[in-house]
Amino acid sequence: MPGPKGNAVIGQSGGPTAVINRSFIGAIMEARKHEEIVEFYGARHGVQGMLRNEYVPLFEQPNFVLSQISQTPAAALGSIRHKPTKEECNQIFDNFKKMNVRYFFYIGGNDSSETAYLINSFAAQEGYDLRVVHIPKTIDNDLLVTDHCPGFGSAARYVAAVFIGDNEDNRALKGVKINVVMGRNAGFLTASSLLAKQYPKDGPHLVYMPEMSFDLDQFLKDVDRTFKEHGRALVAVSEGINRQGIYNLKNGEKPEYISKWLNSFVNLNLPKKYLPKEASKVVEVDSHGNVSLSGTGMMGDILSIIVKSSLNISRVRADTLGYPQRSFPLSVSELDAQEAYRVGVDAVIAAVQDNFDEGSLAIKRVDEEGVYQIETFVTPLQSVQKQTKSFPKEWITDDGRIDERKFREYVNPLVGDLPITGRFVKAIF
Amino acid sequence: MPGPKGNAVIGQSGGPTAVINRSFIGAIMEARKHEEIVEFYGARHGVQGMLRNEYVPLFEQPNFVLSQISQTPAAALGSIRHKPTKEECNQIFDNFKKMNVRYFFYIGGNDSSETAYLINSFAAQEGYDLRVVHIPKTIDNDLLVTDHCPGFGSAARYVAAVFIGDNEDNRALKGVKINVVMGRNAGFLTASSLLAKQYPKDGPHLVYMPEMSFDLDQFLKDVDRTFKEHGRALVAVSEGINRQGIYNLKNGEKPEYISKWLNSFVNLNLPKKYLPKEASKVVEVDSHGNVSLSGTGMMGDILSIIVKSSLNISRVRADTLGYPQRSFPLSVSELDAQEAYRVGVDAVIAAVQDNFDEGSLAIKRVDEEGVYQIETFVTPLQSVQKQTKSFPKEWITDDGRIDERKFREYVNPLVGDLPITGRFVKAIF
Repeated sequence: MPGPKGNAVIGQSGGPTAVINRSFIGAIMEARKHEEIVEFYGARHGVQGMLRNEYVPLFEQPNFVLSQISQTPAAALGSIRHKPTKEECNQIFDNFKKMNVRYFFYIGGNDSSETAYLINSFAAQEGYDLRVVHIPKTIDNDLLVTDHCPGFGSAARYVAAVFIGDNEDNRALKGVKINVVMGRNAGFLTASSLLAKQYPKDGPHLVYMPEMSFDLDQFLKDVDRTFKEHGRALVAVSEGINRQGIYNLKNGEKPEYISKWLNSFVNLNLPKKYLPKEASKVVEVDSHGNVSLSGTGMMGDILSIIVKSSLNISRVRADTLGYPQRSFPLSVSELDAQEAYRVGVDAVIAAVQDNFDEGSLAIKRVDEEGVYQIETFVTPLQSVQKQTKSFPKEWITDDGRIDERKFREYVNPLVGDLPITGRFVKAIF
Repeated sequence: MPGPKGNAVIGQSGGPTAVINRSFIGAIMEARKHEEIVEFYGARHGVQGMLRNEYVPLFEQPNFVLSQISQTPAAALGSIRHKPTKEECNQIFDNFKKMNVRYFFYIGGNDSSETAYLINSFAAQEGYDLRVVHIPKTIDNDLLVTDHCPGFGSAARYVAAVFIGDNEDNRALKGVKINVVMGRNAGFLTASSLLAKQYPKDGPHLVYMPEMSFDLDQFLKDVDRTFKEHGRALVAVSEGINRQGIYNLKNGEKPEYISKWLNSFVNLNLPKKYLPKEASKVVEVDSHGNVSLSGTGMMGDILSIIVKSSLNISRVRADTLGYPQRSFPLSVSELDAQEAYRVGVDAVIAAVQDNFDEGSLAIKRVDEEGVYQIETFVTPLQSVQKQTKSFPKEWITDDGRIDERKFREYVNPLVGDLPITGRFVKAIF
């Protein structure tokens, strides 16, 4: 069956990236070319807009507006963290029917593909021709099937550039510097810090990914050894470091996050006036009036205090790289931006094809004679939902280090050229 | 007297910037043209290298090396935080005499100009013709006399770009976002967050500078009001916010930093094995085994917990912008880079002039018909040491806000063009 004539809906979900709007605009520009798609509606804040029927009409947006939006970080339609229930997905499908929606594009991570799948399954039950395409985006690069995710390249470029600058800073004013990098269950972004290394003694000297087990005592030994060897240490730590290591988790076992454990050492004894007036879901307060911490924000600071305290090193600093990793507008990878646009375009092309039902756009690498090249293809929604991808074990050496050559081969084209740092000749230091 | 024939020494001091190496290389390139300067030595880690006679010979560095170094963030010679004693300055002068050093260039903030002044005063006592030029750099922009400091423009560009991305992120996933910005006693960098505002409802919605008194209860009221008005709040907070406000300090009074006060709510109850084995200067441990916190790293996190707890808002996040403000290599302001180079060049030109003694290079704005233009001049070292500059009071409105028009007029040329963000037309949200 050719694509039915009807309307289309697109939404954005989950944590924004620097290039998610490229996919969004790519889809609009392509959809305009297909007469099967009568009107194209942008759902405000993902499923929330689909439940409340809050839409932006997209086809009449002037091109200069679309062009500017495509270069704007984060999600122009608004995003959402909520994963809808089955009932909500059914409601969304009902709303779609009333609007004669025949095409649904959802840009997001693996949860979004599950949402898309659920909505499509209600359509399938009724034999309603709804075509559903999930368009991948994550900075964590943790989606299954696809070679890499749009959004990752720009985030990795930001991380690599931070470490390039910080490596110089750490050379200039010696000490220990710990940078906490995003990626709760996948080490791709943290590993990207390694791209900063341009000379033999450059940092990051130590890299801790969530895939590997983290032991604080071993960490301290590593930092101590590095500091003694180089007079400094630049350290990359994933926000998701955990006791077991994702590689070693048994079926159904949950990682014990180091951030949670470190937070448990902290008592935050706020004055009463700053405690919630009534029982609150937002913060937990114990019987002593201590606020329980959650999240990873303090992990870098606590680690740096432990390094200071245990190793008696005076200059120890930590930065948590934070949101600029996903939204900094001046370090977008050109290739990442192009590919993000392309998956938006290709999602629409796929959706209008004969007999298309559902799927997630994916990228395959088809390098020719060593020249980077990709193709896109469609993989069933179920193949990318529920689980996520870890840093490949094949890129870990027998002694548990990242095989930098293999990883660079994969990541270099995604990140693009990075600033080159200078060194004196007759290298005196 | 024309410049004497002899050697030159240059050093870099204090916190690095993204363009401090431009000044360094500018000085080398110019010095090569003046036969009065026989050899040019770069001191490793500022005064430390001058005390230990650790130098890099600079004239023979190939141009491509110098060119790459000029584009590398942080201090290629190494930097230092130590402010030398009078005795050490005397020792440095003695070392200079032995090396026939006649020209001394020191790139740094106001402490460095004091060091330069001290060294020069020993030369003056002996009637030794030493010519000393302080070359300004700070990201805080807090040096007296000069219109602005090389290094500030690039840091401000980074801060503005972070807020541009974060404003979009905060629009996409509503909530309260607090960003802690560098500048312990001067609000220039924090105020630069305002450059992110491109549309009427854009953030930052609230900006807290060290010049103004900070009251936590007023802060909470401000955030509450903003969140109710916009459904979100993007907040810029200087790391140096304090109870009194720099503007209101009485002679000799020290600011009571909010970071220190907030840290006092935190008990960090580390396991014994992570406490120092013996009395340590590096961390303070109280009788209960609690580690005392110092620094500003946790301020953002503690503020965000207080906002959550007091205002019962679930989505509250904080980032401390950290070292990328001073070393991120992909957001250098082109004008800042050019001016940093120029002050290095002009420092050498000044030093070799007839009867020159000492001074700090400074920038004067001499716009013509509204077109940005500068001149440099030399101001006595004593005029820039000891004290620092605050955000000008003339740019504060009667109701205590930043006069954005006046500040933008000053800062826009320094920062350069920023990414433009897109908005749907028929603005639906």
